[in-house]
Amino acid sequence: RVNSDRLWDSIMEMAKIGPGIAGGNNRQTLTDSDKQGRELFKSWCDQAGLAMGVDQMGTMFMTRAGTDPDALPVYVGSHLDTQPTGGKYDGVLGVLSGLEVVRSLNDLGIKTKHPIVVTNWTNEEGARFAPAMLASGVFAGVHSQDYAYARKDLDGLTFGDELKRIGWVGDEKVGARKMHAYFEYHIEQGPILETENKQIGVVTHCQGLWWLEFTLTGREAHTGSTPMNMRVNAGLAMARILEMVQTVAMENQPGAVGGVGQVKFSPNSRNVLPGTVIFTVDIRSPDQAKLDGMRARIEKEAPKICEPLGVKCSVEAVGHFDPVTFDPTLVGRVRTAAEKLGYSHMNLISGAGHDACWAAKVAPATMVMCPCVGGLSHNEAEDISKEWAAAGADVLFHAVVETAGI
Amino acid sequence: RVNSDRLWDSIMEMAKIGPGIAGGNNRQTLTDSDKQGRELFKSWCDQAGLAMGVDQMGTMFMTRAGTDPDALPVYVGSHLDTQPTGGKYDGVLGVLSGLEVVRSLNDLGIKTKHPIVVTNWTNEEGARFAPAMLASGVFAGVHSQDYAYARKDLDGLTFGDELKRIGWVGDEKVGARKMHAYFEYHIEQGPILETENKQIGVVTHCQGLWWLEFTLTGREAHTGSTPMNMRVNAGLAMARILEMVQTVAMENQPGAVGGVGQVKFSPNSRNVLPGTVIFTVDIRSPDQAKLDGMRARIEKEAPKICEPLGVKCSVEAVGHFDPVTFDPTLVGRVRTAAEKLGYSHMNLISGAGHDACWAAKVAPATMVMCPCVGGLSHNEAEDISKEWAAAGADVLFHAVVETAGI
Ligand SMILES: NC(=O)NCCC(=O)O
Ligand SMILES: NC(=O)NCCC(=O)O
Repeated sequence: RVNSDRLWDSIMEMAKIGPGIAGGNNRQTLTDSDKQGRELFKSWCDQAGLAMGVDQMGTMFMTRAGTDPDALPVYVGSHLDTQPTGGKYDGVLGVLSGLEVVRSLNDLGIKTKHPIVVTNWTNEEGARFAPAMLASGVFAGVHSQDYAYARKDLDGLTFGDELKRIGWVGDEKVGARKMHAYFEYHIEQGPILETENKQIGVVTHCQGLWWLEFTLTGREAHTGSTPMNMRVNAGLAMARILEMVQTVAMENQPGAVGGVGQVKFSPNSRNVLPGTVIFTVDIRSPDQAKLDGMRARIEKEAPKICEPLGVKCSVEAVGHFDPVTFDPTLVGRVRTAAEKLGYSHMNLISGAGHDACWAAKVAPATMVMCPCVGGLSHNEAEDISKEWAAAGADVLFHAVVETAGI
Repeated sequence: RVNSDRLWDSIMEMAKIGPGIAGGNNRQTLTDSDKQGRELFKSWCDQAGLAMGVDQMGTMFMTRAGTDPDALPVYVGSHLDTQPTGGKYDGVLGVLSGLEVVRSLNDLGIKTKHPIVVTNWTNEEGARFAPAMLASGVFAGVHSQDYAYARKDLDGLTFGDELKRIGWVGDEKVGARKMHAYFEYHIEQGPILETENKQIGVVTHCQGLWWLEFTLTGREAHTGSTPMNMRVNAGLAMARILEMVQTVAMENQPGAVGGVGQVKFSPNSRNVLPGTVIFTVDIRSPDQAKLDGMRARIEKEAPKICEPLGVKCSVEAVGHFDPVTFDPTLVGRVRTAAEKLGYSHMNLISGAGHDACWAAKVAPATMVMCPCVGGLSHNEAEDISKEWAAAGADVLFHAVVETAGI
């Protein structure tokens, strides 16, 4: 078993960087806090004797050498970036558990055949720069690096400029590394494990996603002196599209979700009907046909909602991944590890996207999950216990060592 | 008749300060641009021989002396602040036409019995700091100065601190001045004069307003891994309240409007269901019972919308004025002036709020209006012709001189 106190202490230490306003974290990607988080993680890796490689997307690859010079590395990682009002565990647990795997191997004096590379992917959250899982997406060849560098945050700053600014543009070509396997350990971010009273989620699949960014163009006009019949009300159109997205999601139950997290009115003045409303619809399903069907229906109905209001409607997909099936051999190793360790477990479909979803495109990949209180994540109140954290890290340790070989 | 070229040139000169992004202006109250606008206006007033007084709300009172030492001044004014994406005429036309009245009197060597005070009220728009017409509201005793100073913009800066910062805290006690009469000339900001092909709006009333700021509290949660039935979706509640406001406004036709100009999601991240949604409903009607009835209905229905979603709903009135009836004698003088000058005219109810609404609480007051293209205002594309501007300024000139006495 891993050293659960050391793991927990490291998580708490990392949580001091980019503190939130309600006990969580705001360590958004490529901010000064992200830079500080990277430096702390690097210092721990240095102490553990890991060699650092950084690619041109700023992803950190911290290598523990293997005994077989020809063996490809086993990768284990997640992300250190957070939502603007994020929790202490989302992503961090996976990176620091990867480090804990290595620290435990060091303690035990165990050498593995395959090298082990603890990985911190850049911009997993997609909060500051859409899409999510950006660096792993470039790694897997899904996005070009130029596309990634051109992504903009709400202030118009680009990913490329901000990566340069914090000094983490590496020299490795992105995706040049070959992986023997990829493991990612993460909190569930949903309610199932806690409800079912299981310690370990054996993640067999991940649901797919579309992020649809709508730009509604109305006519800026005075809220008082513009008669109702002369309004070109983009705000009202937005409201109707939100309701329609809710209907589409509900009609695709079970096994689908739909919602809106980001809305921007312009000029956003109390007595001006908005000229522009921009918002992003997030829809997901583990079922490819359902997912694409929801997208098609939303894109068909939105213009029908806008047209009678005179509102212009345009939509752009700013994030997407298909549902993922993880590698059955690795999934089996996670299950076996949980059984061997005596941890209760069940199969899970990940509700959230993860870097493992892109890694699965270029290598055998899977995930381990632990419960989180109330299924709550993307909330500063996100919570897990030290015991929950440790159980998943133990499973990760065994599955990784099994795969890396002794 | 006034010098229409000089008036137009001054408007165009003022429009250079705080330029917008689409041909209009962003000269929001108490910004550096507002400061610059005030300085330009003051320099013109100096040239016209006016004496400046400034009150503790930063309102500028520029006085042309009268011949009767006991006569109260006739005030004529409006505001130089704009919306974030405002037009060149909203407010500015009224202030600079007041100046043009004085300049024309100077040209003609006419002295009036009553002094004439050209006035630039602070924060008429209410865009940066709610409520609108803030300084005239304090002047009329509707708000306390402490309340006004404590108003905050979206960045949390207060009115009081910003007024100090731009150096325009005057020494006059607000509301100490007594008015013989108050005139305000403004673009209509609505479609009626243009549709009816009239040059002059004789403003008999102004419709009343409520600004209801809603704070909806949901639960921040992951958009992907949070099942539909576990969501506490404040965004969905907002959408339903927007639709309900639209219904309430439509069911109160004719003679009512309702809409939403400002919406703020927190944390406003694509993959986080909002924990908080704050937005402001703007409802208006010239009919007091209708106005208050709409408010009551919205405040009754909103919690019913939120409750089944588990969303907490709180509402605060952040702006309000009752419908106003302007002074019949002054209204008559405006109509007579239009007739004498041969301008087509009609009675109007102002759809927007104006400083005249608060001035009417402490003095006889009325307004003059000219058409604007397409009824469009609170939009950088706001437009009027030089001839439209001049006609209203002529009417203002005659009504003011009639009231100030020769
Ligand atoms: N795990 C996680 O929250 N990733 C962010 C991408 C997503 O929205 O699923
Ligand atoms: N005239 C004008 O636009 N005033 C702002 C206050 C309002 O919203 O009516």
